[in-house]
Amino acid sequence: MAAVTAVTRWRLLLVLSTAALGAAGAPQPPNILLLLMDDMGWGDLGVYGEPSRETPNLDRMAAEGMLFPNFYTANPLCSPSRAALLTGRLPIRNGFYTTSGHARNAYTPQEIVGGIPDSERLLPELLKEAGYVSKIVGKWHLGHRPQFHPLKHGFDEWFGSPNCHFGPYDNRARPNIPVYRDWEMVGRYYEEFPINLKTGEANLTQIYLQEALDFIRRQQAARRPFFLYWAVDATHAPVYASKPFLGTSQRGRYGDAVREIDDSVGKILHSLQDLGIAESTFVFFTSDNGAALISAPKQGGSNGPFLCGKQTTFEGGMREPAVAWWPGRIPAGQVSHQLGSIMDLFTTSLSLAGLEPPRDRAIDGLSLLPAMLQGQLMDSVHHFGLRPWRGGENLCPVTSRAKALEPDPSHVPLCTGILCVRSHFLSSFRSLSLCSDKMSVPGCCDRMGVLKWPIFYYRGNTLMAVTLGQYKAHFWTWTNSWEEFRQGIDFCPGQNVSGVTTHTQEEHTRLPLIFHLGRDPGERFPLSFASTEYLDALRRITPVVRQHQEALIPGQPQLNVCNQAVMNWAPPGCEKLGKCLTPPESVPEKCSWPH
Amino acid sequence: MAAVTAVTRWRLLLVLSTAALGAAGAPQPPNILLLLMDDMGWGDLGVYGEPSRETPNLDRMAAEGMLFPNFYTANPLCSPSRAALLTGRLPIRNGFYTTSGHARNAYTPQEIVGGIPDSERLLPELLKEAGYVSKIVGKWHLGHRPQFHPLKHGFDEWFGSPNCHFGPYDNRARPNIPVYRDWEMVGRYYEEFPINLKTGEANLTQIYLQEALDFIRRQQAARRPFFLYWAVDATHAPVYASKPFLGTSQRGRYGDAVREIDDSVGKILHSLQDLGIAESTFVFFTSDNGAALISAPKQGGSNGPFLCGKQTTFEGGMREPAVAWWPGRIPAGQVSHQLGSIMDLFTTSLSLAGLEPPRDRAIDGLSLLPAMLQGQLMDSVHHFGLRPWRGGENLCPVTSRAKALEPDPSHVPLCTGILCVRSHFLSSFRSLSLCSDKMSVPGCCDRMGVLKWPIFYYRGNTLMAVTLGQYKAHFWTWTNSWEEFRQGIDFCPGQNVSGVTTHTQEEHTRLPLIFHLGRDPGERFPLSFASTEYLDALRRITPVVRQHQEALIPGQPQLNVCNQAVMNWAPPGCEKLGKCLTPPESVPEKCSWPH
Repeated sequence: MAAVTAVTRWRLLLVLSTAALGAAGAPQPPNILLLLMDDMGWGDLGVYGEPSRETPNLDRMAAEGMLFPNFYTANPLCSPSRAALLTGRLPIRNGFYTTSGHARNAYTPQEIVGGIPDSERLLPELLKEAGYVSKIVGKWHLGHRPQFHPLKHGFDEWFGSPNCHFGPYDNRARPNIPVYRDWEMVGRYYEEFPINLKTGEANLTQIYLQEALDFIRRQQAARRPFFLYWAVDATHAPVYASKPFLGTSQRGRYGDAVREIDDSVGKILHSLQDLGIAESTFVFFTSDNGAALISAPKQGGSNGPFLCGKQTTFEGGMREPAVAWWPGRIPAGQVSHQLGSIMDLFTTSLSLAGLEPPRDRAIDGLSLLPAMLQGQLMDSVHHFGLRPWRGGENLCPVTSRAKALEPDPSHVPLCTGILCVRSHFLSSFRSLSLCSDKMSVPGCCDRMGVLKWPIFYYRGNTLMAVTLGQYKAHFWTWTNSWEEFRQGIDFCPGQNVSGVTTHTQEEHTRLPLIFHLGRDPGERFPLSFASTEYLDALRRITPVVRQHQEALIPGQPQLNVCNQAVMNWAPPGCEKLGKCLTPPESVPEKCSWPH
Repeated sequence: MAAVTAVTRWRLLLVLSTAALGAAGAPQPPNILLLLMDDMGWGDLGVYGEPSRETPNLDRMAAEGMLFPNFYTANPLCSPSRAALLTGRLPIRNGFYTTSGHARNAYTPQEIVGGIPDSERLLPELLKEAGYVSKIVGKWHLGHRPQFHPLKHGFDEWFGSPNCHFGPYDNRARPNIPVYRDWEMVGRYYEEFPINLKTGEANLTQIYLQEALDFIRRQQAARRPFFLYWAVDATHAPVYASKPFLGTSQRGRYGDAVREIDDSVGKILHSLQDLGIAESTFVFFTSDNGAALISAPKQGGSNGPFLCGKQTTFEGGMREPAVAWWPGRIPAGQVSHQLGSIMDLFTTSLSLAGLEPPRDRAIDGLSLLPAMLQGQLMDSVHHFGLRPWRGGENLCPVTSRAKALEPDPSHVPLCTGILCVRSHFLSSFRSLSLCSDKMSVPGCCDRMGVLKWPIFYYRGNTLMAVTLGQYKAHFWTWTNSWEEFRQGIDFCPGQNVSGVTTHTQEEHTRLPLIFHLGRDPGERFPLSFASTEYLDALRRITPVVRQHQEALIPGQPQLNVCNQAVMNWAPPGCEKLGKCLTPPESVPEKCSWPH
């Protein structure tokens, strides 16, 4: 079979998939529903091994859909991850990073001056081209100054807040965070939208649930394809739950919040079924970063067997629970070992809408659609079992992340089942060469038929680590400073891997620490530098990293400058509510990012 | 409703359950199949969150059966746990412990002089009374001298070995471990039964599988109820797998062994279905102790989110994967949060056979049958979800462990669904008083309707810890000595909880370290001594421990004396094979148990 044929067949499959997406009689692309959690960890769901197993609805979602145990966020912190999800680009490209110090995490508090640049093209903006109506429910976190408003970046509706629900503030030194409906604020946290820090009671998840159900109903009635981005934040400290859920979890208040979210997800999925649009709605559940172990156990979740949590570039900081659900399209009860990224949701969503990702910039997301739909080509499989390797048309996901490797992404591997193909291309396929080993071609598919794309782990503008296939290489290791650690700020409580969970920034760029994540998901046993396995892994990883770094054009960093004057003193609509506050004098300062 | 009525009703349910057990037309008790793993950890199954998810058959077994996430072994080491399983009694009672040092683990190597005492009544011996034919396939580990032979303790057939598959030995300083068929050896490991330590290849799991299938077929043909104890050891270092499985796991050789066992379990369950006896066979899968992290990552498994592993009394050492399967009887896809113990399999098996546990001794196992069967009284539930609290006849397991608390087990709680009952009884129910709070009665059922029985954690004759409900109290903490630790013997690699994972024996008997295992399954955050929660938990735990210790009559310790002369030099049958070796002079010595 000629290589060109493989490519043609690949494109054909994509075209067929896209063409067949509309419901019978209505050539309409599927609805897209992204459920994004806040600081929820990989280990927080029953299906991911949480011992209390209090997530029956999410577990059922997994049983009816596809589980991605190797799914990653783009950053161990909330706001850069969210920017990455909506742009399909690493924070280092879209500007959600800082250059204020070496390897520093940064996010979007209300004194931040930056936000999502106009030059970035966000998912809802692109989906408009295919007729989608888009709503964000919950936390935006891509900037709160007027130019960053979500309705200026493609969303048609918004109910939620621009920043984290920290507080309560005194409205003199700091204003409480506003809650918006569309263009205008409708109140503030701790004021019109109470959160009882003592009891943990807040009604917000219920409000966010109703906002979602209402939006879905309206779009279904209008027969418009919709994109709903449901970004709830009850599992971010201070965690909260509404009264019926408070005190109901074996896991304490954090578990109460998880249970309420689980219940809400169940209601959302049921509503899709009741409205008859489950089979025309793609749903994906994931989280923005690992569980915040610094808030555990009372206000933080679980990262299961993984090392450390939020703020770190160990697996616990960046590996996320991930479930895809699309009855009738994504086969039930499957597990995909494809390395996936939150940025893939950008490209996957565009694929669903029949759209191409922007061609004028590097895009880091690839479409997971083939990985999700290829199961249809296979025998029906056991629940939660291993997806067996099958030959034939067992296509691996491809293309989009390759484009991110411009200008010279040579030797990017493609996989077409029993054929493994190395492609050399710039903006499109240029030449292809076949390799015949069907089972385990280095740098190509692994024996499960999973394509090896890299996952990059950044802190600020420092590439801390990369994962390729089962191998993860750390170029820098750091949790936080001794100074912070001695004050009780611990991102890895109870965990201590000598020379790995370090409190000084340790450089390993010349001889990275490499772990095999299959044998050692907890990153406890670095491979011996002298082993053949180490040298083989390094040989494969090195060119991928070099390529990435050589081609990288960092965006303008958005998270360097802070200013008390830009806080939410007088958001639009404050006049109507009589809730405008007077900002202090404008004093731009360098933000402080201690870790 | 009078208290007596509740008891009567309870007994009635038991009687009904037992009476209804036989297949239609055949008043025969169900077959019992216990699948006992060796050093497999809680986190090793896909359904328990192992990221590679390579156990489709075990995961399906869970989906078709009931999962017990809070299931414990009786000791963090293999041979005492196995003795506990077969006697229904803690090692401190049945003699499988040492008094050679404080808080020392001990097991059954081939130089051990002791073994299972004749005075202990083993499960197969008792099941004979109900007409069962019993076979052990795999590791016995209850003593290898003639008087300890499994066929002298109730088993009718044996294929397997008396000790661990360590070796190869030179047959001069130490003999290789024999493999028995029934009364006589048929060869030795590394000789007739090769294990390639370099490649990890061994055919033993396949042999054990065939032994199981053959036994099941024979008993089904003879229409005799059977007890099969399938005690395979491929996941104990040195781990092994047969050729078709070697190199197939993402987890390395340990994963290869798991995959082969998973495949074998699938074949065993299928055979039950093919033979039409699935609905008359109770199957339970668990492991003897936590994963041996000292052998990780190449030869050791995963304890998921739990602390440390084998040899320790932290959760990683004693919490086990556990799945019950009995199509048509145990409802599918359920989770039971009942605290369960490997010793409960003894009492549960007797209940299945319509037998009572021995009345002349303390029995630590309770019957899990009501917990397993009560699901039938409930609505069908979601897969892998939380079992919802239901009122009515939602009975909690009861009786047997209460008896173990003699002579004065007052205030042992019973639970009958929405009624919570405190009973005061000696050898039988004496008086009962009702308490009306249906949701969360201290010391009684928790809000999930799960009865709170204690789990005791011993090292040697030292009570290290106890778990009651969600609370675990450590009276002693120790991993191993500094001396061993500095030599690289690490039972908690990558984990370090200050003041908890200690290398000196730390006494906390007056003020135990208490953890809430729901919020903090990893035992990282001890409760504050000053908190109300701590004091409440201590108040509930203290009388349970006092009662246990006051009533305890330790058995004669079997694991104190070692002697090179008692090793497997000349097992029965060696003459026929020409494989008798000459033992050295008999020199009894105190065994060395360093940790």
